[in-house]
Amino acid sequence: MWKEMTKNKKIRMGMVGGGQGAFIGEVHRRAAFLDGQIELVAGAFSSNYENCLQTGQALGVDKSRCYEDFETMFLQESALPADERIQFVSIVTPNHLHYPVAKSALEHGFHVLSDKPATMNLAEALSLKSVIETTNRLYGLTHTYTGYPMVKEAFSQVAQGELGDITKIIVEYNQGWLSEKPSEDNKQAGWRLDPTKAGISCCMGDIGVHAANLAEYISGLNITEVCADLSSVVEGRTLDDDGTVLLKFNNGAKGVLISSQISVGEENNLTIRIYGTKAGLEWRQQEPNSLIKKFNDAPMQVIRTGVGALSELAQKYTRTPAGHPEGYLEAFANIYLQFIEQIRHFETGTQNDVTVSAPGIDEAIRGMAFIENVVDASKQSQKWHPFLLENVSQGE
Amino acid sequence: MWKEMTKNKKIRMGMVGGGQGAFIGEVHRRAAFLDGQIELVAGAFSSNYENCLQTGQALGVDKSRCYEDFETMFLQESALPADERIQFVSIVTPNHLHYPVAKSALEHGFHVLSDKPATMNLAEALSLKSVIETTNRLYGLTHTYTGYPMVKEAFSQVAQGELGDITKIIVEYNQGWLSEKPSEDNKQAGWRLDPTKAGISCCMGDIGVHAANLAEYISGLNITEVCADLSSVVEGRTLDDDGTVLLKFNNGAKGVLISSQISVGEENNLTIRIYGTKAGLEWRQQEPNSLIKKFNDAPMQVIRTGVGALSELAQKYTRTPAGHPEGYLEAFANIYLQFIEQIRHFETGTQNDVTVSAPGIDEAIRGMAFIENVVDASKQSQKWHPFLLENVSQGE
Amino acid sequence: MWKEMTKNKKIRMGMVGGGQGAFIGEVHRRAAFLDGQIELVAGAFSSNYENCLQTGQALGVDKSRCYEDFETMFLQESALPADERIQFVSIVTPNHLHYPVAKSALEHGFHVLSDKPATMNLAEALSLKSVIETTNRLYGLTHTYTGYPMVKEAFSQVAQGELGDITKIIVEYNQGWLSEKPSEDNKQAGWRLDPTKAGISCCMGDIGVHAANLAEYISGLNITEVCADLSSVVEGRTLDDDGTVLLKFNNGAKGVLISSQISVGEENNLTIRIYGTKAGLEWRQQEPNSLIKKFNDAPMQVIRTGVGALSELAQKYTRTPAGHPEGYLEAFANIYLQFIEQIRHFETGTQNDVTVSAPGIDEAIRGMAFIENVVDASKQSQKWHPFLLENVSQGE
Amino acid sequence: MWKEMTKNKKIRMGMVGGGQGAFIGEVHRRAAFLDGQIELVAGAFSSNYENCLQTGQALGVDKSRCYEDFETMFLQESALPADERIQFVSIVTPNHLHYPVAKSALEHGFHVLSDKPATMNLAEALSLKSVIETTNRLYGLTHTYTGYPMVKEAFSQVAQGELGDITKIIVEYNQGWLSEKPSEDNKQAGWRLDPTKAGISCCMGDIGVHAANLAEYISGLNITEVCADLSSVVEGRTLDDDGTVLLKFNNGAKGVLISSQISVGEENNLTIRIYGTKAGLEWRQQEPNSLIKKFNDAPMQVIRTGVGALSELAQKYTRTPAGHPEGYLEAFANIYLQFIEQIRHFETGTQNDVTVSAPGIDEAIRGMAFIENVVDASKQSQKWHPFLLENVSQGE
Repeated sequence: MWKEMTKNKKIRMGMVGGGQGAFIGEVHRRAAFLDGQIELVAGAFSSNYENCLQTGQALGVDKSRCYEDFETMFLQESALPADERIQFVSIVTPNHLHYPVAKSALEHGFHVLSDKPATMNLAEALSLKSVIETTNRLYGLTHTYTGYPMVKEAFSQVAQGELGDITKIIVEYNQGWLSEKPSEDNKQAGWRLDPTKAGISCCMGDIGVHAANLAEYISGLNITEVCADLSSVVEGRTLDDDGTVLLKFNNGAKGVLISSQISVGEENNLTIRIYGTKAGLEWRQQEPNSLIKKFNDAPMQVIRTGVGALSELAQKYTRTPAGHPEGYLEAFANIYLQFIEQIRHFETGTQNDVTVSAPGIDEAIRGMAFIENVVDASKQSQKWHPFLLENVSQGE
Repeated sequence: MWKEMTKNKKIRMGMVGGGQGAFIGEVHRRAAFLDGQIELVAGAFSSNYENCLQTGQALGVDKSRCYEDFETMFLQESALPADERIQFVSIVTPNHLHYPVAKSALEHGFHVLSDKPATMNLAEALSLKSVIETTNRLYGLTHTYTGYPMVKEAFSQVAQGELGDITKIIVEYNQGWLSEKPSEDNKQAGWRLDPTKAGISCCMGDIGVHAANLAEYISGLNITEVCADLSSVVEGRTLDDDGTVLLKFNNGAKGVLISSQISVGEENNLTIRIYGTKAGLEWRQQEPNSLIKKFNDAPMQVIRTGVGALSELAQKYTRTPAGHPEGYLEAFANIYLQFIEQIRHFETGTQNDVTVSAPGIDEAIRGMAFIENVVDASKQSQKWHPFLLENVSQGE
Repeated sequence: MWKEMTKNKKIRMGMVGGGQGAFIGEVHRRAAFLDGQIELVAGAFSSNYENCLQTGQALGVDKSRCYEDFETMFLQESALPADERIQFVSIVTPNHLHYPVAKSALEHGFHVLSDKPATMNLAEALSLKSVIETTNRLYGLTHTYTGYPMVKEAFSQVAQGELGDITKIIVEYNQGWLSEKPSEDNKQAGWRLDPTKAGISCCMGDIGVHAANLAEYISGLNITEVCADLSSVVEGRTLDDDGTVLLKFNNGAKGVLISSQISVGEENNLTIRIYGTKAGLEWRQQEPNSLIKKFNDAPMQVIRTGVGALSELAQKYTRTPAGHPEGYLEAFANIYLQFIEQIRHFETGTQNDVTVSAPGIDEAIRGMAFIENVVDASKQSQKWHPFLLENVSQGE
Repeated sequence: MWKEMTKNKKIRMGMVGGGQGAFIGEVHRRAAFLDGQIELVAGAFSSNYENCLQTGQALGVDKSRCYEDFETMFLQESALPADERIQFVSIVTPNHLHYPVAKSALEHGFHVLSDKPATMNLAEALSLKSVIETTNRLYGLTHTYTGYPMVKEAFSQVAQGELGDITKIIVEYNQGWLSEKPSEDNKQAGWRLDPTKAGISCCMGDIGVHAANLAEYISGLNITEVCADLSSVVEGRTLDDDGTVLLKFNNGAKGVLISSQISVGEENNLTIRIYGTKAGLEWRQQEPNSLIKKFNDAPMQVIRTGVGALSELAQKYTRTPAGHPEGYLEAFANIYLQFIEQIRHFETGTQNDVTVSAPGIDEAIRGMAFIENVVDASKQSQKWHPFLLENVSQGE
C-alpha cells in the first residue's frame, strides 16, 4: 500500500516564478518534493534578481543556475549537457505570463508543467497547442482536483460502466472569501477581480473552470451547450463573483454547474454528483477520501481510499494505508507524478498509458473555452449557447 | 420541553378520501392524531361505500357519520348542532378532487385543510381564493416541510437579520424512484406521470413546488423571474421527471432550484442553502434536526433541535428534548397544530399570530403559479421568464 | 411502504399517571395515539382528583371513567362488560409506583405496559414475574430504543449471521445535562439524583440500563460478568452521574459500556458498535435512520430506513417511505404496536411471533440486575464481578 | 496562510533503515521532504549494502555517504567538517534497533529523530534518557497524531481553559486488519504478533500507546492509575489484539481507552473526546480537519483547519487555506518541522518554545510505561493498578 519512491532516477526541474512572498510556488514545490523524485536545479524565481538569488539559496539551487529571467534560463540551460540541464519547467508566475513562458520553454526544448490557467484566453491556448505540436514536447496543466484517489476511482467506475448511462451531473465549487470588498492588502483577492490581470472572469475563470474540468474528467463526457447566468453580487465589481450554468453533454445528459465566491461560510467546497441509470456517485473535496455510491434498491456505499478492491488507477495514486487521510498536497503531487512518468516514457521512447497522463493542452483549451462560452452565454438573452471551441464572441 | 397537549378541547375533523388502500390518508391521520387534539368524527373515505364503512369502523367513526360522498357529508354535518358537527375537513382525495371538495366544504361553512396540490392549475387556485374570501372560512395546505423545527429556526434567523441581506439560495429536491419505467402496479408512479391525472408537470408539480415553497418561506422572499430547463429523461414520458430552474428573487438575490425523480439513489433529498452577507444556512430534510450555520471567519455552528436558545417559533413546534429525534410525521403534525390553532382563534374571535399559521391559499397560488411558469419557461427559447401570477401561457 | 392502521378494531387503554404537568405521560399518549389503533377510555391520571378530571376531559375520556386512584379504576373497570372495559393499563407514574400499580392491574386481570424502570429493585422485578405468571396476563416495558427500524435491522442481521461470531460490543449512552448542580426547579434532575426516589443509581439506572438492554437485544447475547467504575463527578452527589463498565458476554465476547450525564454537550447520545468476525455494525440514536455496516475488504454500507431489501422486522416497523425520517416518537409507538399485537393474539388465542413482542419482564429483570450488579461491582476492589440475577449485594 | 518554506538553510539528515522494500522509511522521507527544509545527505539504509547503495542512488545520496552500517556512518560523518556532516539522524529501522541506533548516534554527537517505539521496554527508555542528558543532544519521537493542526487547536483550547476543568476523556484507536490470522506473506502483521519482535504487546504497544499519548497531550494531564482488560481475540495469539483500559488522571478525571486491531471494518480510527465543566471536544483522525466543540446550551461548533481565529499553534502547522484538506503526511511532516526548529534553536543557542517541540524522551518513557503497566494490570485480579514509571512487574 505504501508507495515507494526510491526506484527511479530523479527528474530535474526548473521553476519560473515562486520567489519569496509568492503564493502558489510553495504549493508546487511541496507537491514536487513530496515523493522525492524531482530535484529543483534551476530557477528564474522572480523579476527581482535579489529575491531570485535568496530563494534559490534557501532551496539549495546553485547560484549559477539562479537566473535573471526565464529567457536567460532557457537559453543557458539548453546549452548544458543533456544529463545536467533541466528536463521540465514548472510555471508558477502570475497568470498573464503562463503563455509566453510556456511557449519559450517549449521552443527551447523543455517540457512544461504549468499552473492553471494555461493562458489568458482561448486564442492563446489554441496557439499554444500548435507550439506543443511543432516542438514535440510534453505539456501538463495542474488541474489539481483530478489527482485525488477517489476522483480516480470515480473516473474508473464510470468508465467501467458501473453507473450505466450518465443522465445528470451536478457540480459545484463554492467559496465565501470574496463576499465582502477585500481589503487593500489582500493580493489574492485583488488581482482576481481586476480584468486586466484576471481576464474576462473571476469566479468562473478561477474556480468554475475546475468544476467543469472535474465533471468532464469523471464522466468522460463533453459539454456541448451552456445556459449561463453570472453575477457580480458585491457592488462595484466588473467581473463575476457568482454564477450558475446549465449544461448539456454530448450523450444527451443534462447538468448544472454552480460556482460562487460570495457564498459566506463556504471554504473550498468543490462537490460533484453524477447520476447514471444504475447508480449515483457523490464526492466532496473537503472530505476527499470518501466516495459515496448510491443505489435505488440497495444500501449506499462509502468507498474509501485504501479500502477494498479499488481500481488500479485509484491504487496507483494512493500513498498511505486505509484511514491515514490523504489531502490536497498529495492530490497536487499526483499531478507531478503523472507528468514525470510521461517524461520518463518520452525519454525512453516507451508508451505511456493515456489514462495516467496529467491534464494537458486539450483540457487547457476546453477550460479557456468554458470561460469564454459562459461569459458570452451570460450576456445573451437566449437560453442556450453552443459550447464553441473557437471564435467565441463576448460582445454584448 | 415536552409539549403538553392536554389543555384544549379536541377539534372535530371530517375526512374526505383516505379509505383503506389509500396512501396519503394514513399520513394525515397519524399527523392529526399524534397530539391527541383532534378527533375524527366523520368521513367520506371512499367512493366505494363499503370501503368507507369499513374504514370508518376501524377508525371508530360512528356509522351514521360515514357518508357516501362528500356532498352528503357536508350537507348532513352542517345540519348537526354546532358543537357536534365537524369543524374542519381534511382533504386527502386524488388531486383532481382537491378543488371541488374544498370549494364545497367552504361553501357549507367548514374550514379546509387540504393535501397538496391545492388545485389542478392556477386558475382553480385563484378561484378558490375567491371562495375562501366569500365564505370567510380558513384554508390550509400541507406544505409539510415548513413544519420542521429547524426550518422554523431558519425562518426566524433570516427574519431577525442573522444572515444579513440574502444573496443566494440553492434549493434541491431530488429523488431516484422514477429512474426506470415503473411497473404496472406502481400506482404512485403511475398517476404522477399521467398528464390527465397529474396536470402539466410530474417532477416540478410533485416535488419541485415544495422546494420553491421552502425557499420562499425561509427567505421571506418572492421569486420574480425563472429560467427553466425541464427534461423527460426516461424515454416515452410526456411529463418532466427532472429539471433545473434559475431564480431571481424580489430583493435581487439569485437562486437555483434543482429537482429530480431520476437521480438514482436519492431518497427524498430536500436540501436548502441560503447565503446572506453575514452568514449562510444549510438544512437537509433527511437529517432534519440539524441546521448548519456557516461564517467566513468563525467556526461553523450546528444548531440542533432542542439545544440552546432557539427561536420561540422553533421551540413551539418541538415535542421532545434534545437528542430525541423528531421526524417527518412530527413535521406533518405541526401543520395540523398550526391549523387547529387558527381554528381556535377563529372561533373565539382572537387574533392569531400570522407567523404560526399553516401554509394557506397564497402559498397555494404561488405553488400553482410556480408550476405553470416553469413549464412555460422551459418551452421558451429566451432565458428569463417573468414569474406571473395569472395568465401564464404554456403554449409552445 | 406506508403502513395502514385502519384494519383492526381499536384496543382500549387505561392510563395511570400522566396528569397535566407530568412529563412522560405525554410521550406515551403520543406514541399510543400515533397509529390510531388505541383509544384511551379510562384513567387515574393524578393523585389530585381535580387534575385527573381536567386531564380526562381534555383527552376526551368520559368523566365516569376518570378515577380517584388506580385501585378504584381497576375495581370498577373490571366490573364493566368485557367489551367495554379497558384491555390494558399504561403506567406512567413516578418510578416507585410502577411495581404496585403493575401488580394490582395484573391481579385485576389487565395487561400492563409499564414505563421504565419496571420496579425499584431486582427483588420487586422477580416478584413481579411471579405475579405475571400467576395471573397469566401480558406485561410490556418501554425500552424505547429497541423500537427503531434500524435497531430491528441490526438485530435481524446479527440473527441471520451477517456479522459472523460477535467478538466485541461498544455501547454508549452519554448526556451532558447533569454536568452542573441542577437548579431547584428542575424536577427531572431532582428526583433522579435523590436516592429515596431514584434508587441506588442515577446514571446507570436511568440511561446505562438502556445501553445494556440495547447491547443484549441486538447481539442476542447475555452479559455474564462486569467490571464497573461509577463516579459522582459533580460534588455533593451520592448517586453516580458517570460510569464505565467492562463487559463479558456468554459467547466469550468482550464489551464496554460507557454512560454519562456529565459529558457536556452530549444530548442523548446512545450509540452502539457491534463487531463480528465478518463485519461490524454501528448505529447512532441521534441519526436513527442510518445503520452503518463495515467490512475489512469492501466499501462501508449505509443501510437506510426504507431503502432496499431490509429484514421483515425492520419493514414491519417502518411507517414512511425512504428519506422521510422517523424519530423517537415513532420508535416509542412501535413498542405500543408490538404490545397491542400481543394483546390481539392473546385474545384470539393465536400464536404471537416472539421476535415482535415488546420488551417484557425478562428484560425488566435483567435491567434491574444490571443496575444492582454494576453498583455492587463498582464498590469492589476486585476487577470482575459475576452478573447475578438474584441476591446481588450492594454492601461496601 | 500558505506557509513559506524558503527562508532557512536546509538541515542535513542521515537515515538509518528505510532501504528499498521497507515500509516506514518512505513515510519518513515524504514527511522530511515535504517542506523542502531537509536534505538527505547520508544513509545506512539497509543491512544489505547493495540495497543501501541502490536506495542512496535513487535518493540522490552521494555514494561515499551510503554506509555499510550505522556505526560506520556515525564514525565517518562525525569526522566530516561541521558544516558538511549530518545534523540529525532519522531512525526507521525495525523496532529492536531503535534503542542501540539512537544511543550510538547521540554518543557520536548527532541529534536523533526516532520512529516509534523509542525502545523495546521501559528500562531501555529510562537508560536512553540518561544518554540524552549526558550527551546533551536533542531527541524526538514521531508520535505523529499530535502533529495535526486540529490536535494543536484542541491542546491550545484546553490550555487556555476553554473547557473548564477536565472531567472525562474517551480515547479510542480501533483497526480491523488483524481480525483474521494474517497470511504468511503479511510482514506487517507478522512481526507485530511475534513477542520476540514486538515485545510484550501487540495492540496496546502498536496503537494503544498512540491513544494514551494523544489523551495526555491534549489534556495536559497524566495517567495515574489503570484498570486493564486485554484480550487475544483471534485464536492462537500470545499477544493482545484488543483491549480496554479504564484511566484515572492526576486531576481526578476519569477516562476510558479502547483499542483494537480486530474491530472488523475499522480503518485507522483514532478518536478522542474530552469533556470539561464548560464544553466538550471531539476529534476524529480520519476527518482530521474538523474539531467539534459541544456545549450544553449553545450550538455545537465545527472548528475547521484554516477557518477563523485559531490558536497560534494550529496556524503555525497549517500549510493550506481553508477547505484544502491536510492529511496524515502533513501531520507527520509537522513532527519533522518541530524537530528541525529545535535543532536551529540549539545550534544558534536561542530559546525554543517548549510547546512547539516534537514529542521527546519523556513521552517515550510514558509510552513504554503505559505498555508495561497495562499489560501488568491486565494480568491482575484487582481492579486498579498504579501507573508506575519504573519497576513495573509483568509477572502473573
